[in-house]
Amino acid sequence: MKVAVGIHILADMYGIKPELLETKEILMDIIEESVRVGNLTKISSDYYQFEPVGASGVVLLAESHVSFHTWPEFGLITLDLFTCGDPHKADVAFEYIRDVLRPTEIEFKKHERGAKAPETTVLAQPVGNPVKS
Amino acid sequence: MKVAVGIHILADMYGIKPELLETKEILMDIIEESVRVGNLTKISSDYYQFEPVGASGVVLLAESHVSFHTWPEFGLITLDLFTCGDPHKADVAFEYIRDVLRPTEIEFKKHERGAKAPETTVLAQPVGNPVKS
Repeated sequence: MKVAVGIHILADMYGIKPELLETKEILMDIIEESVRVGNLTKISSDYYQFEPVGASGVVLLAESHVSFHTWPEFGLITLDLFTCGDPHKADVAFEYIRDVLRPTEIEFKKHERGAKAPETTVLAQPVGNPVKS
Repeated sequence: MKVAVGIHILADMYGIKPELLETKEILMDIIEESVRVGNLTKISSDYYQFEPVGASGVVLLAESHVSFHTWPEFGLITLDLFTCGDPHKADVAFEYIRDVLRPTEIEFKKHERGAKAPETTVLAQPVGNPVKS
């Protein structure tokens, strides 16, 4: 697949055991591990616990980001993986998360982002020394 | 439009003046203001500066998230606004950002997220007291 600046996977996954979606700690472990197995470069991450249950999280990557939001009452996680560079990294990270959460149904979309950028585009975001605000 | 758990706008915007996309400070001001005008509830935000130019940022919202990545050399920003609850909030925030950045071309997609959740779904994520990890 020709890639302009990045690949964005949007996956809404259903039928997941609620106990996997209720607390940020479990999801943090899964998402951070997906970043490692996908060989992605984490800049920062934030995870939040909602009451009574449910969590959200974002991981800023040198290659763009991962984000998720859960609705345990529906066995649902909405997951986004947006990566620049090697387009297979998003697939690897996604497959890891899917295999751990074991949804019974997935709505899966994959978009090219920045598809109209010049064809000379290098397959990576400018990488330097990230500076936290 | 019937909404399950949220609306996700994906907008790749081209032809933006590079000086608007080079530094995180300018983008932070624009994104934070979009959250305010959209009447969205910020939990946290992170912005990063890439060298020599370019920036990324994410805002975790009670209603989901906003994220962006810039390629000043192409006049490009990839922008995501994912909001639960009132589906017009994402539109209002998007339109603010668009009107400030004044792109010459936009690739715009809008997806329902969690569209297969039960029809009894309340149009909001569980809201409680977010706890930072």
